Amino acid sequence: MKALVYHGPGQKSWDEVPDPTVSEPTDIVVRIDTSTICGTDLHILKGDVPTVEQGRLLGHEAVGTVVATGAAVSSLGEGDRVLIPAITSCGRCANCKRAMPSHCLAVGGVGWIFGHLIDGLQAELARVPFAETSVHKVPKGVTDTQVLFLTDILPTGYEVGIRNGRVKPGDTVAVVGAGPVGLAAIMTAGLHGASRVVAVDLADSRLEFAKQFGATHSINSANEDVDAVIAELTDGQGVDVAIEAVGVPETFETCARLVRPGGVVANIGVHGAPATLHLEDLWIKNVTITTGLVDTVTVPMLLQLVRDGRIRAERFGTHEFAFDSIMEAYDVFADAGRHNALKVVLMR
Amino acid sequence: MKALVYHGPGQKSWDEVPDPTVSEPTDIVVRIDTSTICGTDLHILKGDVPTVEQGRLLGHEAVGTVVATGAAVSSLGEGDRVLIPAITSCGRCANCKRAMPSHCLAVGGVGWIFGHLIDGLQAELARVPFAETSVHKVPKGVTDTQVLFLTDILPTGYEVGIRNGRVKPGDTVAVVGAGPVGLAAIMTAGLHGASRVVAVDLADSRLEFAKQFGATHSINSANEDVDAVIAELTDGQGVDVAIEAVGVPETFETCARLVRPGGVVANIGVHGAPATLHLEDLWIKNVTITTGLVDTVTVPMLLQLVRDGRIRAERFGTHEFAFDSIMEAYDVFADAGRHNALKVVLMR
Amino acid sequence: MKALVYHGPGQKSWDEVPDPTVSEPTDIVVRIDTSTICGTDLHILKGDVPTVEQGRLLGHEAVGTVVATGAAVSSLGEGDRVLIPAITSCGRCANCKRAMPSHCLAVGGVGWIFGHLIDGLQAELARVPFAETSVHKVPKGVTDTQVLFLTDILPTGYEVGIRNGRVKPGDTVAVVGAGPVGLAAIMTAGLHGASRVVAVDLADSRLEFAKQFGATHSINSANEDVDAVIAELTDGQGVDVAIEAVGVPETFETCARLVRPGGVVANIGVHGAPATLHLEDLWIKNVTITTGLVDTVTVPMLLQLVRDGRIRAERFGTHEFAFDSIMEAYDVFADAGRHNALKVVLMR
Amino acid sequence: MKALVYHGPGQKSWDEVPDPTVSEPTDIVVRIDTSTICGTDLHILKGDVPTVEQGRLLGHEAVGTVVATGAAVSSLGEGDRVLIPAITSCGRCANCKRAMPSHCLAVGGVGWIFGHLIDGLQAELARVPFAETSVHKVPKGVTDTQVLFLTDILPTGYEVGIRNGRVKPGDTVAVVGAGPVGLAAIMTAGLHGASRVVAVDLADSRLEFAKQFGATHSINSANEDVDAVIAELTDGQGVDVAIEAVGVPETFETCARLVRPGGVVANIGVHGAPATLHLEDLWIKNVTITTGLVDTVTVPMLLQLVRDGRIRAERFGTHEFAFDSIMEAYDVFADAGRHNALKVVLMR
Repeated sequence: MKALVYHGPGQKSWDEVPDPTVSEPTDIVVRIDTSTICGTDLHILKGDVPTVEQGRLLGHEAVGTVVATGAAVSSLGEGDRVLIPAITSCGRCANCKRAMPSHCLAVGGVGWIFGHLIDGLQAELARVPFAETSVHKVPKGVTDTQVLFLTDILPTGYEVGIRNGRVKPGDTVAVVGAGPVGLAAIMTAGLHGASRVVAVDLADSRLEFAKQFGATHSINSANEDVDAVIAELTDGQGVDVAIEAVGVPETFETCARLVRPGGVVANIGVHGAPATLHLEDLWIKNVTITTGLVDTVTVPMLLQLVRDGRIRAERFGTHEFAFDSIMEAYDVFADAGRHNALKVVLMR
Repeated sequence: MKALVYHGPGQKSWDEVPDPTVSEPTDIVVRIDTSTICGTDLHILKGDVPTVEQGRLLGHEAVGTVVATGAAVSSLGEGDRVLIPAITSCGRCANCKRAMPSHCLAVGGVGWIFGHLIDGLQAELARVPFAETSVHKVPKGVTDTQVLFLTDILPTGYEVGIRNGRVKPGDTVAVVGAGPVGLAAIMTAGLHGASRVVAVDLADSRLEFAKQFGATHSINSANEDVDAVIAELTDGQGVDVAIEAVGVPETFETCARLVRPGGVVANIGVHGAPATLHLEDLWIKNVTITTGLVDTVTVPMLLQLVRDGRIRAERFGTHEFAFDSIMEAYDVFADAGRHNALKVVLMR
Repeated sequence: MKALVYHGPGQKSWDEVPDPTVSEPTDIVVRIDTSTICGTDLHILKGDVPTVEQGRLLGHEAVGTVVATGAAVSSLGEGDRVLIPAITSCGRCANCKRAMPSHCLAVGGVGWIFGHLIDGLQAELARVPFAETSVHKVPKGVTDTQVLFLTDILPTGYEVGIRNGRVKPGDTVAVVGAGPVGLAAIMTAGLHGASRVVAVDLADSRLEFAKQFGATHSINSANEDVDAVIAELTDGQGVDVAIEAVGVPETFETCARLVRPGGVVANIGVHGAPATLHLEDLWIKNVTITTGLVDTVTVPMLLQLVRDGRIRAERFGTHEFAFDSIMEAYDVFADAGRHNALKVVLMR
Repeated sequence: MKALVYHGPGQKSWDEVPDPTVSEPTDIVVRIDTSTICGTDLHILKGDVPTVEQGRLLGHEAVGTVVATGAAVSSLGEGDRVLIPAITSCGRCANCKRAMPSHCLAVGGVGWIFGHLIDGLQAELARVPFAETSVHKVPKGVTDTQVLFLTDILPTGYEVGIRNGRVKPGDTVAVVGAGPVGLAAIMTAGLHGASRVVAVDLADSRLEFAKQFGATHSINSANEDVDAVIAELTDGQGVDVAIEAVGVPETFETCARLVRPGGVVANIGVHGAPATLHLEDLWIKNVTITTGLVDTVTVPMLLQLVRDGRIRAERFGTHEFAFDSIMEAYDVFADAGRHNALKVVLMR
């Protein structure tokens, strides 16, 4: 088969490689029908993720069709269409039992293994371990592209942003960073009844997407004083929930300033450096700060919302490519601003 | 009447001052029967709390007897024994309605006003504003000293430590700092079913108190490697909840290291400097960090537990003084280590 | 002033009566600007509520303008526009402190006192006790009719239906009974992310309203087999939440049959007779059943949603009358089906 | 091997039967080291459970040692000591994913299959399906008898009584019925901070056990007016939580009367007949009623509490028998009152 192979920092190619096979009784093999590229893949290519070895097939988000099943697999069969989430869950370790497969102990303590510790999903075929406790059947009447972004970005914005942020009906929510993951938080804020959703970003083009995805207010932090605008909007109290969706200390510290007493800062961003936590101000403020890798445990629920037309997750897919144009797809995604791109859709 | 007057940094005296009177219809005046001294009072005397003006009567924890009531007060009458919590609640602002009187908007945004913004409770008499929404009747059969520490320290340990920490049955809880507030967390951890309570401190004398108050394990951080002991105790996973009860950056950062993926760091300590938040490690760890000033909203519940003999809060009172020996009481409390003191009880 | 006086079963009139005055320091007097009629008022007129004495002024839902304040009232002043909810809250009894003023102990154990135990709000003026802990200022830019139905029916549908029913994102919710209170549940189901909202009623006209208010499916139980339709819609599992909004044993028992294992039956209906609880089927089903009178504690939150255009509560007002046409308004409301009426709006 | 075989109503014997074997890759075979008898077994023997066929091996509670594993089993090996709970969980159906294996869809919609739909655990060996998602390793240093009652009765009392009842610190909890399952609720009430635990039963001998297991008050309903005693104890308000642990309409209706406004009735009892639900009283009372079969999802947590000496579950075992004395064990358990027995322990 063909697959995208990582050959070390800065180097990748769409190569012929051996077909994967069922190696454990709980495995399935899936023909990938649609896949996509994550910001994490770009980090890997920069050499930022040393646990990814050369020769690794990349990618951790895909929808496909089952072509083979292990001896222990009874609830999935050939021809089933399945959504393969970014997170693998053994279903039986202490962390999976507490609904936290992001830290599945059976796969090494971090549930993200595709395109990281095992071969990934930017490929024509893929071996999927712990299949029955990890993948989800795609409901009838729902297309592959409608659910592709439920593999990672949508549950990330929802679980790590909205749900960790304990967004409640009536809340004013600030989302700092309107890239794809921030937009996923914006798109799902209404599921918890948010009354006002304030997008904050440096780029007007992303703020325009934010409005299309459900933001009621936007602040361009390049031109506007974010603290002042939020203070005016909230009678000086601050927002109920501030969601960090960038991953640098400055935006985290902004979120910690914007939140009202009793509010929540939900960090989604992937950080490479420490932030300063102003405990001398925050100790008295009754705030909650959360972090987290997505668990994808809300995928069954999100599938219901997609089935019923409540969520239109396909809107993240701004550009579409055939598998064998994946190198071009990477170029577009890596320069998303210039192409006004959110996510690319790779089609069989 | 006599009261403890703050005369500026380093200076206090037990002076004759005018009796307080009812000035608002929602006020009561209370004869103080027992009071105590808080670490915050020592900070004020060092000049660390500039919002406290010279001439202010200190103290924010007391139990007493109602001697006068305002025209709007119908549920309290002369002779009622009342517990006066550290936090005043108007009962009608947005923050009081969300059960967060620690930030009561009617009294300036911080619910702690006694001995801070208005005259306090280390006095023979005190005016108590918003009385019906703030004070609690002492149940029959319960003594003053049994409930004195429900005014501040016990709900602080419980609400800000155990409840914010979302301690659950079976949890392993580390309490870093075994001074009075840490001990209050230790004493109430069992209310949420904690299975193991690990006290961490530099002083063996405090660790001894910790065991008496319910700690199952203790670590002297002067001699032992806290991280290593916790790792061994928890199969390398970390504790479910780490409670910070000191108030310096180092102990906060210790708590952030000790907590398992999916766990909670509950900060009780009063901080004067920022801490470093290692988001480069924590972003992926699904942790929750909380801060807060006590709300005292659990006092009615704690009173039930005291009434039924489930909590023996009087054990915090290691030393007892008459009101007119308050200067000596301050000396003992300020040098608690030498006197093996936890809290002093001031008796009418 | 003029007011609607109850003269015993079947008898009411719009009479000249003495103006109310401030009698307690915590009272205010309000000029009523808009009011409405509740199904409960019709029950009183039938003689079904013996605690209502002859001579009582009826009505418990109104928006008005403060004209006088008691000595203890500091946060409300003359000219303030206020929403007066159906429930009075003293703010300090055990039940108010646990956010359950529906059972306020200071007003007799049931928080509904207007037009019941004290004079009501279908009047030109009204005395409002415990004003600061009971009424809510109307935000700027919001009209009286936009918030009139937040006094009772909207929080009833939301708190007792949706919130007690613990509706979660992705849920399928059945609302049995599409009268005003059922419609209030339907209108607010989206605040918790309901994916499918199934209205069940005997009247097509009400089912038509249900669709306008947000129902995604409707079942006319006069013609259709409700159990069969729900079974088909839910793969035989049953709905996540079944909301009873009629008040007869049959509809309650229908709800108990429709709910899936692990689901919730939320009863809103006012019942006059016992129902049969089929514990021989239900004991194993992991179901939750809730009941309740509204607390109106979510009114501040609902006001935010109205302010932001997220809830259009004025849509309940299908017919409008001047105060002195109140007798005609009662006639229309009592025969709502024939007039295709939901709620009437009484305007100063 | 030897096992207890059901030969139709009234008939059972300890017979030689074929050894079980691994038949699915997710199976294990366990040598049973200790087992017990449940009230449900007595019901089966009366012919009350028609889904149990003749020839079925009975029993659904055991601790044993793994002797064989299926090809898909990687986290369990020969020699591992395992607790086999009454509930089997596939770990991947919709109900298992929502932590409700009591209704596991992969095993027929009810998670209780041992000694019911497949051969059970009152046997020298047993086949255990879906082993890795169902069984739990016994911690080192913990004996078989310490955890035997975590297979069913203890999590039933805790999950269906205390947890469903949402017992909170300070609560007054009534447990109606002080048989083994009621005692399990009493034993675990303290994990949620219950302040008063009132046992209600007709037999003084069971009330005596109740006190030993943690009840603070007891009422013999044969001699005392339960309603009056509870009213006096609770200032006429009622209990916070009433737990039904008998299974007849009268005791359910008692619980519904005893609960305060805002309280919870948690039904544990297995019912064979409907009860009358007095909605004409309850509609306004803001009560919650729950039912449920145990999920056993709290077993890992309960194991931690046993490991740390917080729960002494072995105290349920009042009588001990060798496997080949099982007929006598049944006789004692069937006449528990006369023998002052709670549960019998069957030892290899």
